[in-house]
Amino acid sequence: MQLGMIGLGRMGAGMTARLEQHGHTVQTYDPQQPSTAESLEQLAEQLEAPRVFWLMIPAGKITEDTFQSLLGIAAADDVIVDGGNSNFRDSQRRHGEAKEKGIHFVDCGVSGGIWGLREGFCLMAGGDEEPASRLTPIFEAPAPKDGWAVTGGPGAGHFTKMVHNGIEYGMMQAYAEGFEVLRASEFGLDLHEIAGIWRYGSVVRSWLLDLLVRAFEAEGKDLEHIKGYVEDSGEGRWTIFEAINESVPAPAITAALYARFASRQDESFAAKVNAALRNQFGGHAVKTE
Amino acid sequence: MQLGMIGLGRMGAGMTARLEQHGHTVQTYDPQQPSTAESLEQLAEQLEAPRVFWLMIPAGKITEDTFQSLLGIAAADDVIVDGGNSNFRDSQRRHGEAKEKGIHFVDCGVSGGIWGLREGFCLMAGGDEEPASRLTPIFEAPAPKDGWAVTGGPGAGHFTKMVHNGIEYGMMQAYAEGFEVLRASEFGLDLHEIAGIWRYGSVVRSWLLDLLVRAFEAEGKDLEHIKGYVEDSGEGRWTIFEAINESVPAPAITAALYARFASRQDESFAAKVNAALRNQFGGHAVKTE
Repeated sequence: MQLGMIGLGRMGAGMTARLEQHGHTVQTYDPQQPSTAESLEQLAEQLEAPRVFWLMIPAGKITEDTFQSLLGIAAADDVIVDGGNSNFRDSQRRHGEAKEKGIHFVDCGVSGGIWGLREGFCLMAGGDEEPASRLTPIFEAPAPKDGWAVTGGPGAGHFTKMVHNGIEYGMMQAYAEGFEVLRASEFGLDLHEIAGIWRYGSVVRSWLLDLLVRAFEAEGKDLEHIKGYVEDSGEGRWTIFEAINESVPAPAITAALYARFASRQDESFAAKVNAALRNQFGGHAVKTE
Repeated sequence: MQLGMIGLGRMGAGMTARLEQHGHTVQTYDPQQPSTAESLEQLAEQLEAPRVFWLMIPAGKITEDTFQSLLGIAAADDVIVDGGNSNFRDSQRRHGEAKEKGIHFVDCGVSGGIWGLREGFCLMAGGDEEPASRLTPIFEAPAPKDGWAVTGGPGAGHFTKMVHNGIEYGMMQAYAEGFEVLRASEFGLDLHEIAGIWRYGSVVRSWLLDLLVRAFEAEGKDLEHIKGYVEDSGEGRWTIFEAINESVPAPAITAALYARFASRQDESFAAKVNAALRNQFGGHAVKTE
């Protein structure tokens, strides 16, 4: 098949390479990378109707702007796929806006990060049955065998990817806490060695653990040059928003997100309040400066 | 080598099978299973000195009683290995008690559960260098390649296994919460399908996820016949005790343990208190009955 890839960052470039390896023709547009097209309009001209546009760009304003531009460029029966980490509510809205113009919209969560090129990308798609089924060869190419599905209607793909990332936060935090407990122990444990043996036969073996072993190899067992400062890109928050909307208790994933927030604070104002109160009621000493 | 296996439950039987597959001679004692010996004394007679006794029995009283009996049976330079999930402080004490009699004690956490026979058991051992190095062929046999280590001195093996299990609690809870959010969604998602595709190329792929797919296959996507009641066998608690002893924040693993506690309550008294207080200050309706 033929497809227009918009965005050639690490994920987009990896997806393009895997699609081409599987015999698909990929036209490309990225203002910051060598591309076949110099504009969205030119990209549209390079594709035969009905076209498939695949957005592999950061969620937020750039995705919204590009989507709106495409609505003015695409023709009826074309498909726009958002492969980024958009919020599923935005995807539902975009599906509706596209539909008004006879354009199809498919939301597709993509997992695999910078390793996807080698290992394949796990794809979770949502949308109407017809355009989704049309895309089968395009889903099959970047994904490992059995590593993709149309999980439901419009929004379901990004919803599934959102929860995937929420789970990822919780798993990462579980390892993170465990390794801090190991490190604080009296035994002088070799964290690299322990992570290493856990890869074989243990119940906690996982791909994240494989990556942790790589991190210890690259950075040393104290991760000396890595600052304990952890960003988040939204999917963990949204998972918790949805847990709240659905009244589902999600304490571990919530704790994982809060631990990231705490990691970014030089000082916690809540801790100042706590210290001030202990001083007020018990005369406990406070640190000043 | 030659070894006396005490306890032929699923773990002990699996360990014995793997040891024999690797050419070791295993004498066995389990009062409830066909064994080579009918008593610990007879087991000792079946082994050449210096002997290796491997305990693969539940932590707690039965391990303590068996250990104390062995102290009276074993000779100087024999080795007692505790392969169960004993608390590492008990293992440190037992190491000391054994040492007074010239007997070696090695604590060895064993992970792999009922799958260990096929996949190999991940072993985490702690103890003095000499008896531990003597045991190398015995560690190598049940473990997958590179799946074992002597992580430190006396107690370090059980400490490492304890934290392994604490991490396991956190990972399991992360999946658990994520799948409940997926299930509660408006999309009518197929949880079996989603767990299935996540095994290939996704960041959350793991052995626990493989097992979850098996659970959905065996029990159906609603896990209809599985009650939402989760036991714990101590290692999660101990991980949190140690986190507290070392002043290490472990909120996600703690949340995972508390979720297990909550799963066992027909009704939470804390919830009754909450409801009563809402009624008192705001006149909010309470459920009675």
